[in-house]
Amino acid sequence: MSRKLIWKDLERKKLNSCRIFDLYEVSRLSPVGRERSFFVLNAPDWVTVIPVLKDESGRECFLMVEQFRHGSSSITLEFPAGIVDEGESPENAAFRELTEETGYRAGKMINLGSVSPNPAFMNNLTHTFAALNLELISKQNLDADEFIHFHMIPVEEVQKKMGTEHYSNGVMMIALAFFNRWKQQ
Amino acid sequence: MSRKLIWKDLERKKLNSCRIFDLYEVSRLSPVGRERSFFVLNAPDWVTVIPVLKDESGRECFLMVEQFRHGSSSITLEFPAGIVDEGESPENAAFRELTEETGYRAGKMINLGSVSPNPAFMNNLTHTFAALNLELISKQNLDADEFIHFHMIPVEEVQKKMGTEHYSNGVMMIALAFFNRWKQQ
Repeated sequence: MSRKLIWKDLERKKLNSCRIFDLYEVSRLSPVGRERSFFVLNAPDWVTVIPVLKDESGRECFLMVEQFRHGSSSITLEFPAGIVDEGESPENAAFRELTEETGYRAGKMINLGSVSPNPAFMNNLTHTFAALNLELISKQNLDADEFIHFHMIPVEEVQKKMGTEHYSNGVMMIALAFFNRWKQQ
Repeated sequence: MSRKLIWKDLERKKLNSCRIFDLYEVSRLSPVGRERSFFVLNAPDWVTVIPVLKDESGRECFLMVEQFRHGSSSITLEFPAGIVDEGESPENAAFRELTEETGYRAGKMINLGSVSPNPAFMNNLTHTFAALNLELISKQNLDADEFIHFHMIPVEEVQKKMGTEHYSNGVMMIALAFFNRWKQQ
């Protein structure tokens, strides 16, 4: 990797606090010594949990959540996912989000990989886990402003439709790519 | 899809203009009639271009760009990518970005799919294209503040490393997932 590509940090100014991220303006010195400013979001890490289980007929399924998304103003089908709380490990966040959104507890949680959802202007990572040996232990435990339905959907259907129709969240394509690499090992 | 999940738009207020996105605060009415506000980014669509070509020894390669990313403060290896300009088609943006970042012209540009990079708080789509029949026609044509190196990297290596090391941009995992589905057809 070439040193000739690196920009040097000068200063950073917070412009807005937006609950799920903070907006900063960052001044940097270019590789040829020119000063410029960039807008970046500081955000907590995220987790996506891929819950694998069999339906009554023995077909391998994923547990998917259906919810309204406020950026796209649309309803999506996704794997359970959420924000890693301060001081929480990504693995604990994965266990917690799965149970909150679906009521299932994972007997086994496998770390599949981590990547930046958008290094162009975000500083955080999104972590992907596979949740196995699932057991229904409770009802959903949602915030007053969370409205989430969940569905068991055959793996084959999700593999085919991911990136189309209501499977329109790119972060879920990242998660499924990590899952497929793990399955191929 | 259930109507019981849908939030109704009340009003939206622009908080900041940040060149590559605008920050809004949006008031919405929940499915049970409670008013809440959300922070969303309005952004132009993005394109990612997967340029496929053979190296001198006949191995199938991708053309990848190496650059500093201001969100993650790190150097990444990515497919050429950029913003769709106002009034431009995603396909034209794909042709333009490829040539600007690498000097290559695509004889054939194949639309592989589109998805929301983050429907939780972004309203835009990211479009993925495969660029085939490549021909080197010029030098790079970069802005004064763009510093991009490009490399021919065997497909096998990218497939293996995507999501690890410097292949740390999740948007590129989305693009590669679309590419792999297309190759399997």
